[in-house]
Amino acid sequence: MAVKVGILGYGNLGRGVEAAVTRAEDLELVAVYSRRDPASVKTVTGVPVKSASLLEGGAEDLDVLILCGGSATDLPEMTPKYAALYNVVDSFDTHARIPEHFAAVDEAAKKAGKVGLISCGWDPGLFSLSRLYAHSVLPGGKDYTFWGRGVSQGHSDAIRRIEGVEDARQYTVPVPEALEKVRAGENPELTTRQKHTRECYVVAKEGADKARIEEEIKTMPNYFADYDTTVHFISAQELKEQHAGLPHGGSVIYSGETGTEGKKHVIEYRLQLDSNPEFTGSVLTAYARAVARLSREGGAGAKTVFDIAPAYLSPVSGEELRAHFL
Amino acid sequence: MAVKVGILGYGNLGRGVEAAVTRAEDLELVAVYSRRDPASVKTVTGVPVKSASLLEGGAEDLDVLILCGGSATDLPEMTPKYAALYNVVDSFDTHARIPEHFAAVDEAAKKAGKVGLISCGWDPGLFSLSRLYAHSVLPGGKDYTFWGRGVSQGHSDAIRRIEGVEDARQYTVPVPEALEKVRAGENPELTTRQKHTRECYVVAKEGADKARIEEEIKTMPNYFADYDTTVHFISAQELKEQHAGLPHGGSVIYSGETGTEGKKHVIEYRLQLDSNPEFTGSVLTAYARAVARLSREGGAGAKTVFDIAPAYLSPVSGEELRAHFL
Repeated sequence: MAVKVGILGYGNLGRGVEAAVTRAEDLELVAVYSRRDPASVKTVTGVPVKSASLLEGGAEDLDVLILCGGSATDLPEMTPKYAALYNVVDSFDTHARIPEHFAAVDEAAKKAGKVGLISCGWDPGLFSLSRLYAHSVLPGGKDYTFWGRGVSQGHSDAIRRIEGVEDARQYTVPVPEALEKVRAGENPELTTRQKHTRECYVVAKEGADKARIEEEIKTMPNYFADYDTTVHFISAQELKEQHAGLPHGGSVIYSGETGTEGKKHVIEYRLQLDSNPEFTGSVLTAYARAVARLSREGGAGAKTVFDIAPAYLSPVSGEELRAHFL
Repeated sequence: MAVKVGILGYGNLGRGVEAAVTRAEDLELVAVYSRRDPASVKTVTGVPVKSASLLEGGAEDLDVLILCGGSATDLPEMTPKYAALYNVVDSFDTHARIPEHFAAVDEAAKKAGKVGLISCGWDPGLFSLSRLYAHSVLPGGKDYTFWGRGVSQGHSDAIRRIEGVEDARQYTVPVPEALEKVRAGENPELTTRQKHTRECYVVAKEGADKARIEEEIKTMPNYFADYDTTVHFISAQELKEQHAGLPHGGSVIYSGETGTEGKKHVIEYRLQLDSNPEFTGSVLTAYARAVARLSREGGAGAKTVFDIAPAYLSPVSGEELRAHFL
């Protein structure tokens, strides 16, 4: 019997999950839940849109609810709330607040006998797994995470908030020399500036002061001040034609030693993604399958990708996994 | 309290495990067990060597026994035998026989209430995990495994069995153009010959017919006939100086699509290893920790890397893992 999945929130990530659930033969997408007027939301696959208020009281017939809200304000409230009613999966990525988020979800989910998997996606998520496996196999080594080349939505939004900016797209780009040193196992000390550069494509409003906009971008604390940033002013047409996608990716590179002679080993996990939200949605979907199975077996409480045996992500039987993937 | 580990078999892999257990603060290497006369075996770290016969009847005080025998003849007998007495980990890598090996270990381990983890290492092992995660996240894609550049001990041995050969080292080398196409997400159809080449460094005995040796290597069925093979004759001195190590590595590359437009995604897991046996030993050691924990929790039966939640590999607590690796 298919695992019944619901999606709460229908932005880029919600659509990414919709696409992934639709491709998974053992999952059934029951509905998209929205806080907007359902009549105003049209799904890509035609799956029904329902009011989020229907989720109250746990009345909906769902095996897992995938929460596609933002980490800043949505998920800290949403995930504990819905983990008391449904098995849930979220992509909470505010690193410093993971411990308190985990604790809140754990309490709610345990009381309700539900499973709440948090901080899923590719980073946190698959990249975290790569760090954990590497540190466990080669203790005492060093991990590096490089992001890009890819669009950072947070940085693009930050540029859009500057006066005189109509639209913008920001690419995070790893510094090739840094990547090369890390891949060679040199374990360099790298500053923020030495690891990534930032490329901005900006559409200025008519008559806006471009020099001032460029200066504001390059000196913006946290977002750009610590990086070598380049700013390109382009037309709205060019932005639409050349920068419509949301590609992303990156690498976790770990190097460590073994033995008395200190033999070196380098482990790299690399992603190259045409669509960040569709890939992230695919990861959430695989973990939704795992959460449903864990729940059927009586599991409860908050979990992360670290707690899930890999076989739980697959619809394939243990026999077939051993025969074809081992 | 430290997890008590024993090693059965003291070849390259046994020494690799010894090195890894010694570096792990939460593990204690109790003894190396050997079928040879213990007095004739000297360990790198000075850990005691005992006769393998002491393992009979389950009398040794071990939390996990790591089996460092060969897949051809040792492990098919060893692993079920010792899984009836101890928690065990092996590196069984004869792909076609994994199902029957799993069944035999499962029966023995379940009867005894022990855990037997089979087919651990990097391939099968970490590479298998990479295949499973990728297929689960992006169903319907295609995986490619490239090995090398690295020394294949099986192929080196095959050359050594040729008349007139004193010593030999064989490197498996991925074809750069094939790697490039796969990394670009082109999903090419590749023959055996198109994926890897084989480089052989051979020390001929005095007066041996080198042309005949080269011909015998290049036409050897299964090992070389399906590959573009190059043969270099070198001196024993050069072999010792240039080819003493056992480096290896490779990549699992997966590409798949999402969404209605078929957005492409490429996932690569790459290893670059100065010492194949020391890295493999490190993987077995991390899984020995997991097996000990699973056993304490009441687990029993045969397992593979697919069945082990990643957190079990680490000595670090769940809180710390979430705070530092997620």
